[in-house]
Amino acid sequence: MTIEGRDDTAQARIRLGMVGGGEGAFIGAVHRIAARLDDHYQFVAGALSSTPEKAMRSGAALGLDPKRTYGDFEEMARRERRLKDGIEAVAIVTPNHMHAPAAAAFLKAGIHVICDKPLTTTLKEAKKLAALAEKSGLVFCVTHNYTGYPLVRQAREMVRAGELGEIRVVQVEYPQDWLTENLEATGQKQAEWRTDPARSGGGGCIGDIGTHAYNLADFVAGQQVAELSAELTTFVKGRRLDDNVQVMLRYANGARGLLWASQVAPGNENGLQLRVYGDRGGLHWRQDNPNYLYFTPFGKPTQILTRGGAGAIAAANRVTRIPSGHPEGYLEAFATIYTEAAAAIRAARTGAKVDPAVNFPTVDDGVKGLAFIEAALQSSRRNGAWTKLG
Amino acid sequence: MTIEGRDDTAQARIRLGMVGGGEGAFIGAVHRIAARLDDHYQFVAGALSSTPEKAMRSGAALGLDPKRTYGDFEEMARRERRLKDGIEAVAIVTPNHMHAPAAAAFLKAGIHVICDKPLTTTLKEAKKLAALAEKSGLVFCVTHNYTGYPLVRQAREMVRAGELGEIRVVQVEYPQDWLTENLEATGQKQAEWRTDPARSGGGGCIGDIGTHAYNLADFVAGQQVAELSAELTTFVKGRRLDDNVQVMLRYANGARGLLWASQVAPGNENGLQLRVYGDRGGLHWRQDNPNYLYFTPFGKPTQILTRGGAGAIAAANRVTRIPSGHPEGYLEAFATIYTEAAAAIRAARTGAKVDPAVNFPTVDDGVKGLAFIEAALQSSRRNGAWTKLG
Amino acid sequence: MTIEGRDDTAQARIRLGMVGGGEGAFIGAVHRIAARLDDHYQFVAGALSSTPEKAMRSGAALGLDPKRTYGDFEEMARRERRLKDGIEAVAIVTPNHMHAPAAAAFLKAGIHVICDKPLTTTLKEAKKLAALAEKSGLVFCVTHNYTGYPLVRQAREMVRAGELGEIRVVQVEYPQDWLTENLEATGQKQAEWRTDPARSGGGGCIGDIGTHAYNLADFVAGQQVAELSAELTTFVKGRRLDDNVQVMLRYANGARGLLWASQVAPGNENGLQLRVYGDRGGLHWRQDNPNYLYFTPFGKPTQILTRGGAGAIAAANRVTRIPSGHPEGYLEAFATIYTEAAAAIRAARTGAKVDPAVNFPTVDDGVKGLAFIEAALQSSRRNGAWTKLG
Amino acid sequence: MTIEGRDDTAQARIRLGMVGGGEGAFIGAVHRIAARLDDHYQFVAGALSSTPEKAMRSGAALGLDPKRTYGDFEEMARRERRLKDGIEAVAIVTPNHMHAPAAAAFLKAGIHVICDKPLTTTLKEAKKLAALAEKSGLVFCVTHNYTGYPLVRQAREMVRAGELGEIRVVQVEYPQDWLTENLEATGQKQAEWRTDPARSGGGGCIGDIGTHAYNLADFVAGQQVAELSAELTTFVKGRRLDDNVQVMLRYANGARGLLWASQVAPGNENGLQLRVYGDRGGLHWRQDNPNYLYFTPFGKPTQILTRGGAGAIAAANRVTRIPSGHPEGYLEAFATIYTEAAAAIRAARTGAKVDPAVNFPTVDDGVKGLAFIEAALQSSRRNGAWTKLG
Repeated sequence: MTIEGRDDTAQARIRLGMVGGGEGAFIGAVHRIAARLDDHYQFVAGALSSTPEKAMRSGAALGLDPKRTYGDFEEMARRERRLKDGIEAVAIVTPNHMHAPAAAAFLKAGIHVICDKPLTTTLKEAKKLAALAEKSGLVFCVTHNYTGYPLVRQAREMVRAGELGEIRVVQVEYPQDWLTENLEATGQKQAEWRTDPARSGGGGCIGDIGTHAYNLADFVAGQQVAELSAELTTFVKGRRLDDNVQVMLRYANGARGLLWASQVAPGNENGLQLRVYGDRGGLHWRQDNPNYLYFTPFGKPTQILTRGGAGAIAAANRVTRIPSGHPEGYLEAFATIYTEAAAAIRAARTGAKVDPAVNFPTVDDGVKGLAFIEAALQSSRRNGAWTKLG
Repeated sequence: MTIEGRDDTAQARIRLGMVGGGEGAFIGAVHRIAARLDDHYQFVAGALSSTPEKAMRSGAALGLDPKRTYGDFEEMARRERRLKDGIEAVAIVTPNHMHAPAAAAFLKAGIHVICDKPLTTTLKEAKKLAALAEKSGLVFCVTHNYTGYPLVRQAREMVRAGELGEIRVVQVEYPQDWLTENLEATGQKQAEWRTDPARSGGGGCIGDIGTHAYNLADFVAGQQVAELSAELTTFVKGRRLDDNVQVMLRYANGARGLLWASQVAPGNENGLQLRVYGDRGGLHWRQDNPNYLYFTPFGKPTQILTRGGAGAIAAANRVTRIPSGHPEGYLEAFATIYTEAAAAIRAARTGAKVDPAVNFPTVDDGVKGLAFIEAALQSSRRNGAWTKLG
Repeated sequence: MTIEGRDDTAQARIRLGMVGGGEGAFIGAVHRIAARLDDHYQFVAGALSSTPEKAMRSGAALGLDPKRTYGDFEEMARRERRLKDGIEAVAIVTPNHMHAPAAAAFLKAGIHVICDKPLTTTLKEAKKLAALAEKSGLVFCVTHNYTGYPLVRQAREMVRAGELGEIRVVQVEYPQDWLTENLEATGQKQAEWRTDPARSGGGGCIGDIGTHAYNLADFVAGQQVAELSAELTTFVKGRRLDDNVQVMLRYANGARGLLWASQVAPGNENGLQLRVYGDRGGLHWRQDNPNYLYFTPFGKPTQILTRGGAGAIAAANRVTRIPSGHPEGYLEAFATIYTEAAAAIRAARTGAKVDPAVNFPTVDDGVKGLAFIEAALQSSRRNGAWTKLG
Repeated sequence: MTIEGRDDTAQARIRLGMVGGGEGAFIGAVHRIAARLDDHYQFVAGALSSTPEKAMRSGAALGLDPKRTYGDFEEMARRERRLKDGIEAVAIVTPNHMHAPAAAAFLKAGIHVICDKPLTTTLKEAKKLAALAEKSGLVFCVTHNYTGYPLVRQAREMVRAGELGEIRVVQVEYPQDWLTENLEATGQKQAEWRTDPARSGGGGCIGDIGTHAYNLADFVAGQQVAELSAELTTFVKGRRLDDNVQVMLRYANGARGLLWASQVAPGNENGLQLRVYGDRGGLHWRQDNPNYLYFTPFGKPTQILTRGGAGAIAAANRVTRIPSGHPEGYLEAFATIYTEAAAAIRAARTGAKVDPAVNFPTVDDGVKGLAFIEAALQSSRRNGAWTKLG
């Protein structure tokens, strides 16, 4: 167990700001808990809403200094860079269309970025942002949070170590049911912006959760998708973006994949699951009970690998906080992304090398996500034609 | 509980013959148990192998009268039709390429047919056989046995009753792992013929288990597939037929489906499972624990419906033998197909009407299976082009 | 897979009669299916009800020769012994109080006995019957059917082979919910006799299902219970026998056990499960999904052993009919008891030795069951005093 | 979803100290994360070890001001009370024998106490401490953390609302396997003190995890245990305290219970689970997958209630942070205890009334735990004699 030393630190905590995440938001609070859980950050500034009064009210509710509660992210970037104890990193948790301009503003201000996904609303914009990030030399973390689960990391390492042999088949899915009806028509805020092309980009379900599924498969299977054939469907009348996504994947090594994401599958809450099969074994992991990983070496009984338990390996144990049998969940996995980014940000303070074990999704993963979305949109428009990823 | 009266009958049992199913076969014994379980059949004649000595030896081992142990099915059909107490029905359990000629021979002899799947090796042959069957007026049952599970029948009736609303998404899969390696090269009999185009037809995995998945989805969702896009892959070097199958489905009503079948997915034994989603609810059923059906009315908690338990409906209860909590399995479901066919065969004895509750897969389901196989083969050859079902 | 040769046999089938199991009975039909499934028996005579007209009607419904449909078991024993092709074995499936007299009558007639459990209504009667059985040299099988599950046999062999080390803890339970309300007051036949001391004996829940749990633990753990402390409770007003049973067990080797059986636990259908722990490993098996056995070698990941799958051993495979992943259930396990008894009965025809692999519960297991019931009743009456088994 | 406002607060955070929890401890870090997760506390002082150098080193590692890093808890209590910004609350996370003296010292200093369980090592000491706590008027929270799980709270409220009817049967268990071998002999710190009567008190397994099981059953079933019969066993040679615990419970209302706790059951990590049955329904909850609660209204299908999902009620939702399907775990449940205590501590600042929805285990629950331990020890010594709780 590596809990001591993970949650606590003698080194000064990282000063963190936030863009978005005010009143009525969902993911902002998740980011704040994630930042706090291992005690590597202190939250000191925010542009929490695009509506100024709401921004002020949200800042007050969260105990921010009113002087560091900003009406917009540009002002925040401009002023924080000048403060002696200005923020070192910013979390961007707005609707998708604001990710790129906000991230660019903070990169230009020399501030590290932790940005929600999908990275941007277009691949072009994503690539531009990635170039800017690279030039800046700053840390740029994209919160593909499911890669923070210890057993997802274990799965990845087992694949890399060859325990599955050559990868042949990848089955990944992310079904939900919350958009089974026309929820956006009721004014529900989350539904509204996530089904609005102006704020979400051209992908609905595929951007919101399809990219998570894609990222998870990419992270674990470690294979490059060469081309895909996609069928995007909108089932709910009046909805402006896709709410069900089927994608067939061809990997560069010859493996085949199927990705299914849906927001209209009653009985599924956040049913992300991944199965990977090679010529020597198979793996199965589900987010709704994430402390167990099913591993079958071909021809032998399936083993239940538990987080922190017998068979858990170093890559999983270094991001594990509590003993096996005591479940960790979504917030802990999210916190791990923040804690990994913190290691990189602290290293940047002194120019030290980042520990090679540190692992978090970067702007490049964000670009991959947009390449996936755009290829899928294009394929679907072209009646499922096999389409290469940009 | 309807167990009394199901397994026992005052009416004379149906005289049954078998083609195939001798030494070394797997499915023949399953058919014999299935025929016996509810006591509607007596097994009295067989052409159990295409090798005469093996046929005789197998017949002796099964206690058949040597006079009714035949060296080939044609002799059997010819002679049994002339016997006063000749067989009334025949079970055909050979490799696929023999289904059509054997079935035709018995139909012509006025004998009811219970035939394994896939019905034939080509769609053309299947249609011809179906025409012959229709003309004959005889019972023709195709053993898509998974439709015999009580909760599969319950699922079907719930869909028909509108409990799921309009169907939108169908997810069906049938993964196995037994062909992960080149088992056919070792001389294993089952692997040999199932990967041999001459005996299996043009489809490998898709014919052997893909058709089961397709049939199950068809049976439950009750929607017509308009067109499909398929990706058939052969992963094992030297294998002559597909061993991994991905299919995207477009239903006539606008629903979308994904079908995955694989013989190379380590950790999966016979992992058939079906999920169906409509605008009012969702259903989930798995063959490996078939006595439970998960039903979610949208916006309400998921319910666990049990075979014979609270919430079980008439269509399920009439094919249920024992109380809930005592598991029934594969053989019982298979027996139900035989028992349902027996009801039709007995009705044919007297020209009576068949009870409308009786339900078994017919030659038409067999034709549908071949239409699916051929469309998938064609689509896959044409790089996944959307292909209508013939 | 050993399916061929299991269900079929060149040797003449065993002529079987039945006492009880007529109209309205539950377990009679189960016995008939079990006898038929592997084709070792033919059902030819019966005294199916203590009401003569019902006996005749039941016999007719089951296709029995009216001459061999008897009004009572004594007449049946007397007449069948004189027939040239009289029954060789009888299945006794009456309420408990009739087991002893019926079994004695058939033993005296030189007919093998297959008897439902509990063996009798008192320990004294059970011992007397066992003595009679021993003297007769006939086969006496008691249908503690759960020992017929392949993975229960595997569990037993793993314990015997030392894979768990020295046994320390046994947790066994059998909860049901069907008697949560006063069902017997409604006239439901099963509830009526099972809660009637005159027909069930002094134990209600403990006799009906507690003995199954006890037998299962005994079969697998292979340890002798030295003494027990029991708390039997009747929750439903007006009920005459216990409906909830708690027992603490002290084994001769120092192990400790807990047994819980209940008929008033809503949500449990037939929730029999067993967990056994030793100083080297643990095992977990559940009847509601009986094709999986969870085995944990201490300090290593839990393994999922599947019926017929990787890790399945000979003792399990010899009673397995179909491939792993295709579930077998309650009827197959019950059939295995019949098939094992058939091996002994056939050996008795010729005086041959019974294959040592053959394994079925005998009259001695029946005696053990009564010893358990009586010790528990006595302990409970004495406020849970630790009581030795008689 | 009530996440906004839960993790953040405009009111000043509570100044928290800690006794114990330095280098090599396990539970100290858990308490610190729990205190931090919802942002209601700031950790500012500690007497983290009874070894002064270790205390200083631990304080430094955690970023404490060296002036507020104390060598013993008495000095800490004395000095903190005099500071203007001294701690308002202390977390006591030492081995059991130190709980009482430490808690007393802080109560006397006017500082609120959050204390690990079991409360003390004797019932007498527990009652004395409770009296002191009551007199002080201060908040005294005992971290029976499993009551912080949202669905445990839901279960409790469902019982209180009568959804199960009159409670009849309670089955609770907490098996582990980490002490299967003589781990304390290897010098492992956790094993050492937990098996040492001088530091743990007279109960081993029963104190460490049996009390958690007892508390969980007490919290949910809401019935008073009148008397118990216990069998405590020590399986590992050389171990000085019990490592397997069986207890039969008689409730005042006539209900019956079984409690099993074990540290020697291979395959169990922290397998806490609870089942409660009444005359109208049943409930089942497991800690290893805590986001699901199985509820069966008698005669109807079992429902899967999910944290935050359909069917979740106010008592569960107010302690839920993230949407259903995204798992929360052990740390979140632990944090909920801290957050609930924070509400009481803040109310105490101003003399305000505590919101009646606030719910955390108090010193009285701690006393109940000791009453349970002592009755069980006494019963076990007296060969399982039924023993009333003190």
